[in-house]
Amino acid sequence: MSFNTFGKIFRFTTWGESHGPAIGCVVDGCPPNISLSEKDIQKDMNKRRPGQSKFTTQRKESDKVNILSGVFQGKTTGTPISMIIYNEDKRSRDYESIKDKFRPGHADYTYFKKYGIRDFRGGGRQSARETACRVAAGAIAKVVLKKIIGKRFNIVGAVTQLGLLSCNRLDWDDKEINKNPFFCPDKKSVKLWEKYLLAVRKSGSSCGAVIELRASGIPVGLGAPIYSKLDADISAALMSINAVKGVNIGSGMNSAFLSGEQNSDEIRNISGKLKFKSNNAGGILGGISSGQNIIASFAVKPTSSILNSRETINKKGKNTKISVKGRHDPCVGIRAVPIGEAMLSCVILDHFLMHKAQCH
Amino acid sequence: MSFNTFGKIFRFTTWGESHGPAIGCVVDGCPPNISLSEKDIQKDMNKRRPGQSKFTTQRKESDKVNILSGVFQGKTTGTPISMIIYNEDKRSRDYESIKDKFRPGHADYTYFKKYGIRDFRGGGRQSARETACRVAAGAIAKVVLKKIIGKRFNIVGAVTQLGLLSCNRLDWDDKEINKNPFFCPDKKSVKLWEKYLLAVRKSGSSCGAVIELRASGIPVGLGAPIYSKLDADISAALMSINAVKGVNIGSGMNSAFLSGEQNSDEIRNISGKLKFKSNNAGGILGGISSGQNIIASFAVKPTSSILNSRETINKKGKNTKISVKGRHDPCVGIRAVPIGEAMLSCVILDHFLMHKAQCH
Amino acid sequence: MSFNTFGKIFRFTTWGESHGPAIGCVVDGCPPNISLSEKDIQKDMNKRRPGQSKFTTQRKESDKVNILSGVFQGKTTGTPISMIIYNEDKRSRDYESIKDKFRPGHADYTYFKKYGIRDFRGGGRQSARETACRVAAGAIAKVVLKKIIGKRFNIVGAVTQLGLLSCNRLDWDDKEINKNPFFCPDKKSVKLWEKYLLAVRKSGSSCGAVIELRASGIPVGLGAPIYSKLDADISAALMSINAVKGVNIGSGMNSAFLSGEQNSDEIRNISGKLKFKSNNAGGILGGISSGQNIIASFAVKPTSSILNSRETINKKGKNTKISVKGRHDPCVGIRAVPIGEAMLSCVILDHFLMHKAQCH
Amino acid sequence: MSFNTFGKIFRFTTWGESHGPAIGCVVDGCPPNISLSEKDIQKDMNKRRPGQSKFTTQRKESDKVNILSGVFQGKTTGTPISMIIYNEDKRSRDYESIKDKFRPGHADYTYFKKYGIRDFRGGGRQSARETACRVAAGAIAKVVLKKIIGKRFNIVGAVTQLGLLSCNRLDWDDKEINKNPFFCPDKKSVKLWEKYLLAVRKSGSSCGAVIELRASGIPVGLGAPIYSKLDADISAALMSINAVKGVNIGSGMNSAFLSGEQNSDEIRNISGKLKFKSNNAGGILGGISSGQNIIASFAVKPTSSILNSRETINKKGKNTKISVKGRHDPCVGIRAVPIGEAMLSCVILDHFLMHKAQCH
Repeated sequence: MSFNTFGKIFRFTTWGESHGPAIGCVVDGCPPNISLSEKDIQKDMNKRRPGQSKFTTQRKESDKVNILSGVFQGKTTGTPISMIIYNEDKRSRDYESIKDKFRPGHADYTYFKKYGIRDFRGGGRQSARETACRVAAGAIAKVVLKKIIGKRFNIVGAVTQLGLLSCNRLDWDDKEINKNPFFCPDKKSVKLWEKYLLAVRKSGSSCGAVIELRASGIPVGLGAPIYSKLDADISAALMSINAVKGVNIGSGMNSAFLSGEQNSDEIRNISGKLKFKSNNAGGILGGISSGQNIIASFAVKPTSSILNSRETINKKGKNTKISVKGRHDPCVGIRAVPIGEAMLSCVILDHFLMHKAQCH
Repeated sequence: MSFNTFGKIFRFTTWGESHGPAIGCVVDGCPPNISLSEKDIQKDMNKRRPGQSKFTTQRKESDKVNILSGVFQGKTTGTPISMIIYNEDKRSRDYESIKDKFRPGHADYTYFKKYGIRDFRGGGRQSARETACRVAAGAIAKVVLKKIIGKRFNIVGAVTQLGLLSCNRLDWDDKEINKNPFFCPDKKSVKLWEKYLLAVRKSGSSCGAVIELRASGIPVGLGAPIYSKLDADISAALMSINAVKGVNIGSGMNSAFLSGEQNSDEIRNISGKLKFKSNNAGGILGGISSGQNIIASFAVKPTSSILNSRETINKKGKNTKISVKGRHDPCVGIRAVPIGEAMLSCVILDHFLMHKAQCH
Repeated sequence: MSFNTFGKIFRFTTWGESHGPAIGCVVDGCPPNISLSEKDIQKDMNKRRPGQSKFTTQRKESDKVNILSGVFQGKTTGTPISMIIYNEDKRSRDYESIKDKFRPGHADYTYFKKYGIRDFRGGGRQSARETACRVAAGAIAKVVLKKIIGKRFNIVGAVTQLGLLSCNRLDWDDKEINKNPFFCPDKKSVKLWEKYLLAVRKSGSSCGAVIELRASGIPVGLGAPIYSKLDADISAALMSINAVKGVNIGSGMNSAFLSGEQNSDEIRNISGKLKFKSNNAGGILGGISSGQNIIASFAVKPTSSILNSRETINKKGKNTKISVKGRHDPCVGIRAVPIGEAMLSCVILDHFLMHKAQCH
Repeated sequence: MSFNTFGKIFRFTTWGESHGPAIGCVVDGCPPNISLSEKDIQKDMNKRRPGQSKFTTQRKESDKVNILSGVFQGKTTGTPISMIIYNEDKRSRDYESIKDKFRPGHADYTYFKKYGIRDFRGGGRQSARETACRVAAGAIAKVVLKKIIGKRFNIVGAVTQLGLLSCNRLDWDDKEINKNPFFCPDKKSVKLWEKYLLAVRKSGSSCGAVIELRASGIPVGLGAPIYSKLDADISAALMSINAVKGVNIGSGMNSAFLSGEQNSDEIRNISGKLKFKSNNAGGILGGISSGQNIIASFAVKPTSSILNSRETINKKGKNTKISVKGRHDPCVGIRAVPIGEAMLSCVILDHFLMHKAQCH
């Protein structure tokens, strides 16, 4: 059992609350002798960092990662890598006015009922601030995968749907993703999304999103049958991200609409190389990677903290209303892109190491 | 790490191949002093059993469960409950003709690449025959949950979409589900589904399905934050079922389309009882049950074994074609209903026991 | 958490009670493509089997192992290997007279208090009959280790102390061990032990034993630092055997008497080969194998079921006396030899597979 | 798998190297709503802290614990408790002269062979400095156990053998233990031990020790049968401490010398209370606590770093000699007392929480 630990061999444990002095992450099971520096990690941290555009929360966090252990003379030693990130821009007073009310859509009520205690400061442990730690762990996983697999390895994520607006997935261009504040892979959608999200924010509301992840260069054979299927572990990984409510592998929920012929990706030998004619499976068959790109997508619900007034109750059980002022992302789904990439990286590395143990 | 084991406290391990002498399941962590008989389990087994209608495979298996340990004088003892189910109607010769070909959509290719060995007889371990063991474990979980929670507790599943045809979820009637061969909850859809699925089968094709699960009577507070979220564990559980490609909790993938107002289920105190005004969260907030019904749905891809010819390669890498004759369900999604119910029951019981350990 | 499962990657789960229809073992994580037959396992089973000499219980069990899954065409497939052993010579009526009394030294009282239920038939799950399953799992581990490491690999165990009588460890001869009913490695001790143990049995008493295990051919580098140390896992493995009360690695408890000079095994390069000048460490330094022989020993307490009358209480809490007639080993330590070998084999294989995952 | 994590429900993960900036510990699974302050932890830290008498290393560490998360308004919240301890008195230069030599008795050689990298600064991760983190985790476990069990609960440890000198265990007096620098429970032995250990140190050598732990107030029923036996977990816990080579439960290795009558602790009802007439079992029967005091002891080998010259090889495989100057305890066993107490506390709490999950 591991409430705050993720993974089987490459494992990370996160700790810390939104408004505590710091948050952190301990990565265990990282292979030794891999070059690793704080810079490698910071790059990914900056992608998730708040306050970078008018479309995300204005909380200012440098999210600077300090490595406290596990790296000696620039290389991993095989011992736990402890990382710490200080919380810099806490404003606990913002939460004073709502500290006795349960925010609808948030875990305030369930945490209180479970633990009999409430850390109201920015949501405490339930805050998505925890995900900064996942990004740090994922950055290490990526460094290791790049070392092990080589340049072919790549993981990229993008927002393919912003509220009611989808982008054109056929126009996906990896290079566009980081050029706009939405991680949108389709240049032509950006303008419209910008207008749309500003309107959502101004109206005091919020919207959801769908994020798609693509991993390439993954060798065939990763995954374990039955209860440690690669796709089962990816599902758990993505569903564990705050506000995620649905996960698809390949054609996902749409698989129900396909015919048997459409669905079963045909296999061809083309000039000595095995090729699949389609990828409805999302690169995973029977829980094991097929060598195709791994495709997973997930839906993030709209930000629950909104300006518009909602009905709720307080700790005493009295009916009341709530309007959440603070500093909130109008669409938390956007910043879920680097988090999804990180989780997928960790799962793939974990299965890579597991496969080495299983099959000789 | 546990390739063939599911769960944390209430754990079950399954074993066996489609065409071996038997399959089985060892349940560990079942609380002691619970009345349990083979009859309690058989009821659920019969729901999943093949050969019950013209819409499922004609393989004839009585799927009779024998309890070999863990029950003494009609009560569980707290020790492992071992169950065995003999395979009765194997026809390994059906697979002779395709034993060197990789069936598209199946795990033939990935298993072979991973393990360097191929058990071609009915798919060996990758066969959905393994799921009979899950149903047996789930039946025990249900007995325990009924004892612990009482009559309020209920878990029910139904097919809400059969290929291109959805039913009307607003007309869901628990009592209808077991009256038709599709586990369809909406009486009015049955006739059409019957015609549709016969047509699919006659055309040598297959279709997918969406299954919805509803659990009621679940107390608030089950689930663990961050990496053992109740919804993360449900996702992994459902995604681990053969042919599942997508999982939703509550509004699931559709959450992306909701506004912040719609999404955040408002809370009211109505005559001293807490009520949510909607259930987009599917009964889970921050990974912890809210006391509402738990709603999860999942998509099953079309049966990969179809009569219509498909392109593939053989073990030597040569291009060839394949047409799978054997005895196959035109829609494997139908028989996934009791499997989904079983997995959800196991996850909920597991979290129930975990919660007792976490909070005193 | 895993009450009835042992291991991390090479894992086995046991089930069954002393007087149930059968006992069994599911081995998960066994590498694929290893030649394995029931004969490989039976050899070890026979070593532990009761009723083989006048110095062990007269219960007659053939302990025949049936493999139900995981092996196809004579090779392991990487899927779970399920084994079943039927209980043939149960005499539950022997236990009728003591079914309400707590046998001193046994787990009757603690099981009853923990679970609120008592399976009095031969001790139910607490019976050492369970260890037959460990021997079966260990036999598989040995086959795999021999395949992976080669002929250098060997694990041997022997009784070095029988009650008050020790043998001469300097006269240890592997070939003698299986030639006498005590697994004594020193030929000259056998006669005396024979007389001693007959006297113990005739007097209605029992005696303890110390078993020593030696594993050779183990490569340097197995083990994981801190909480998965090779020696920590060996300790847990041996202490989990019924009636074991003490575990030593290398010099063990005697380490306290050594000087710093004596204790620190000096290292030499002799003709290009690293040699240690002594082996107080028992082949393990900092939880990691050093390449020396791994030496572990453990003490088994005297059989608690004795003919001589002992004071105890019954289920109602009344004072009473007990004299256990049944069929019991005068020294359970003897049959612990193959069990110890099995557990050590499993731990070493597990760490071998783990090491492959940790370090590339 | 969890290299640097200990426990099943109450789990802690440690990180950090002897000469890194800090070491730390993340405790997961601590029940909520327990009053906890840094002061509760510091008390135990001070007991293990180096530099407190002339019989321990002169490295000066305040070992001040900072809690970074998991405690809000003086109470645990059920979320991870992260603790950090800064390394203050590192002298890495002390290790420059031996950085290419493998210290005999240390893990230098095995770490280097396993990981292909060497952190020579004070032994890096293999240093017993890591045990400071265990003491911090154990202090929390004790606070929780005291809250749950009440005042009856107590865990105390003492050195019962210092090198060649044993104390009189019959004269054990809890109150004496903290009054002398050896944690000796028998006042009359202290003077002699003082002279003895000074002589050992002056001679450039070192000596071993035996530590005994006694836990009282432990309820009957803790522990899980077969592979999570309470004694198996205690063994692994104690054997995981640096330099430990043997573990006894109750009569331990001496059980081999007992007769069946002596060994089986008789049970009596005395004025309505169940009493055992002896405690050879060390409070554990069949892996489950009996309600008696839990007694465990363990042997710590002599400090491997000694002034006297020893033969060894260097990284290039060349024969050489080594004399370790630095600052070292002449008997590391002494400071193992609070570490043993901490590990035992953690195991007991873990099993306490597990028991709640297993049996309702």
